[in-house]
Amino acid sequence: MLSLAELQRRIRSGDLSAEAAIVQSLDAIDAQEKTIGAFVCRAENVRAQDAGPLRGIAVGIKDIMDTADLPTEMGSPIYRGWRPRADAAVVTMLKAAGATVVGKTTTTAFAANDPTATLNPRNHDHTPGGSSSGSAAVVAAGMVPLTLGTQTGGSVIRPASFCGVAAIKPTYRLLPTVGVKCFSWTLDTVGLFAAGVEDLAHGLSAMTNRPELLPGAAPRTPRIGVVTQDFAGAPETDGAEAVRVAIRAVEQAGASARAIQLPEVVAKAWRIHPVVQDFEAHQAFAWEYRANYDAMPPLLRGRLDESKGIMAAEYDAALRVAGQGRAALAGIFEDVDILLTFSAPGAAPKGLASTGDPRFNRLWTLMGVPCVNVPAHVADGGLPVGVQVIARFGDDAGALAGARFVEKALARL
Amino acid sequence: MLSLAELQRRIRSGDLSAEAAIVQSLDAIDAQEKTIGAFVCRAENVRAQDAGPLRGIAVGIKDIMDTADLPTEMGSPIYRGWRPRADAAVVTMLKAAGATVVGKTTTTAFAANDPTATLNPRNHDHTPGGSSSGSAAVVAAGMVPLTLGTQTGGSVIRPASFCGVAAIKPTYRLLPTVGVKCFSWTLDTVGLFAAGVEDLAHGLSAMTNRPELLPGAAPRTPRIGVVTQDFAGAPETDGAEAVRVAIRAVEQAGASARAIQLPEVVAKAWRIHPVVQDFEAHQAFAWEYRANYDAMPPLLRGRLDESKGIMAAEYDAALRVAGQGRAALAGIFEDVDILLTFSAPGAAPKGLASTGDPRFNRLWTLMGVPCVNVPAHVADGGLPVGVQVIARFGDDAGALAGARFVEKALARL
Repeated sequence: MLSLAELQRRIRSGDLSAEAAIVQSLDAIDAQEKTIGAFVCRAENVRAQDAGPLRGIAVGIKDIMDTADLPTEMGSPIYRGWRPRADAAVVTMLKAAGATVVGKTTTTAFAANDPTATLNPRNHDHTPGGSSSGSAAVVAAGMVPLTLGTQTGGSVIRPASFCGVAAIKPTYRLLPTVGVKCFSWTLDTVGLFAAGVEDLAHGLSAMTNRPELLPGAAPRTPRIGVVTQDFAGAPETDGAEAVRVAIRAVEQAGASARAIQLPEVVAKAWRIHPVVQDFEAHQAFAWEYRANYDAMPPLLRGRLDESKGIMAAEYDAALRVAGQGRAALAGIFEDVDILLTFSAPGAAPKGLASTGDPRFNRLWTLMGVPCVNVPAHVADGGLPVGVQVIARFGDDAGALAGARFVEKALARL
Repeated sequence: MLSLAELQRRIRSGDLSAEAAIVQSLDAIDAQEKTIGAFVCRAENVRAQDAGPLRGIAVGIKDIMDTADLPTEMGSPIYRGWRPRADAAVVTMLKAAGATVVGKTTTTAFAANDPTATLNPRNHDHTPGGSSSGSAAVVAAGMVPLTLGTQTGGSVIRPASFCGVAAIKPTYRLLPTVGVKCFSWTLDTVGLFAAGVEDLAHGLSAMTNRPELLPGAAPRTPRIGVVTQDFAGAPETDGAEAVRVAIRAVEQAGASARAIQLPEVVAKAWRIHPVVQDFEAHQAFAWEYRANYDAMPPLLRGRLDESKGIMAAEYDAALRVAGQGRAALAGIFEDVDILLTFSAPGAAPKGLASTGDPRFNRLWTLMGVPCVNVPAHVADGGLPVGVQVIARFGDDAGALAGARFVEKALARL
């Protein structure tokens, strides 16, 4: 994989020109893309910028994010050839930081569940996960050092786990969703994929102009709470193994890791996540569902058909539970710095029919807390399995520092 | 003015066909529009729908809201002739409820402060207010019974006050902003303009499928707190008179109205509103500001130039204050059902250079609470001045019932 931080160091030192760094990505795309199929379209006349912390960094943008100079097709024929007038805010933020957009990455239609044809670079017989399929795959395949995705259920952390890359779903609205196709405004969160945690930190810091997100010299030893999310069911063997390995690693590195029981209202929040998502989806996709019913992606359309009956009162009650869950979760972070849990039930499912199950992700999306995927285990078939590092609302620096500690501990095992 | 509720009654009884109701609006537009200048563009081949609670109701849509079959120009040459692919969620919700979109209404560029050429129907020498200039004016001029606007500072309640129409800025995210040009995602709120409070209730209930918003037989007598917002400065004579008249009316109608002192953290929230708005605006308008600087509306561009230096930490602190303010305000509503305050400092300013001052509105936008404008007083020159009725977060039914009580009390004076 291409390390963003390493590229930055080489560019800053003069060892590599920004232009050469971009060319390196373009060459990697030329070599890999015909196998992986992770780009919907590619930019022409791609050039490095000559300033900004992300100069020389080639980025891929999930194709539900508006781009003024590339089509934005949302993974759906309803938007075939669609050209927005403006860039999404996050796209402009990347450009302003010096990055070069090299193309749009595949997305399940409208970031829901209808799969793409993208292959998992770790094992071509398996899904890369979704909905940010292309963004996870292009980083895993070493095509580019940074991509953007979105998560409404588990669409950043899950594909990152399946593809063996680092990813962050930052605190709710740390990154704006302006110009990003909406699924659920309470949940939709823009996230980043990169080779490692340090790379995420440099990317997110540059985009947001937040120096506090930059990695410190050595992350301090965090107090770690381990959460099994029993309300979401049991993980598969490989999901459990990933967390076991991570616990062993952090304990060897001198951290304490103790089991934490989440309050009942947090479990309740997990259960009402789909009520929030589906009620808002009916409004977010109101035009598509009403004016383009036949052209809707079948799985999303079926989901909307099934959830038609959700009453406003049920949604209002769900939002109240979410608020109570957030307050209760804040209490948990009085005693621990980070939580450690599954990124996904197990390794990437076989075939491309399913993009996998977001059941270990959706609570954290609803809570709005920052989550980082760290690859922790390799299952049969070379399939990676990650763990999820979670910090309190607004503490993205803490989530990144904790994830870096876990990543380093795993590297020393 | 055209009363939505009255039109509904006549259509339901067979006294008026839905088609005839639409034609009535089209005729009124033909008669008034050349003077007022409140439409950016008008729909062709307009027809009534034959079902839905809003059949026969002609609506105007603020031109920062996407429409699939009409241009959406945002009041700016940057979007001249722009045709979105989809309707904004609120547009589809109106159509699904049976309404007929007859055109797009004028907006200050990007819903900021650069004025439109629209005249105030009550006095052509005065501004109709902004940013939802056209939506307030077309209802005031009796052209259509219902329009949509948006409020980030005071862009719904203020023009409603200046034009002498009822309007509601509902609870934050009761109406989705999907497909509405973003200024500040923490603040932007879609609102409705109509002839009277009952009309707002029928419109909002039909759009949201929330029967609890429909007006009851007789609104119960509310406990009223009067708020002078001293932190925002003193009102003009006419603004103060509007509240005085409203207090007299509700007291004669049997309600108690007592002065309420807002907690200091609420005043603090008022002060940091611009920090939230401007910091988010830099992201929401990132593409326009970076790629179209010269074509930006001058007042908005100047505002962005001036607020460039806001640090992320200042914004984060402002969001914390907003959260504390919301919690403190919820406590106030333990003792009162509604708050009564100024809708604007006074009557509409003379000329079109300024759309007026949102200083009595912006706190409530940041608090996310439902606000209703009720016309209460007529100043020199026939210029109306409204009062603002405010209920607790999520209690839109209470805000509408309270506003209806105030409206009825004023009618009996």
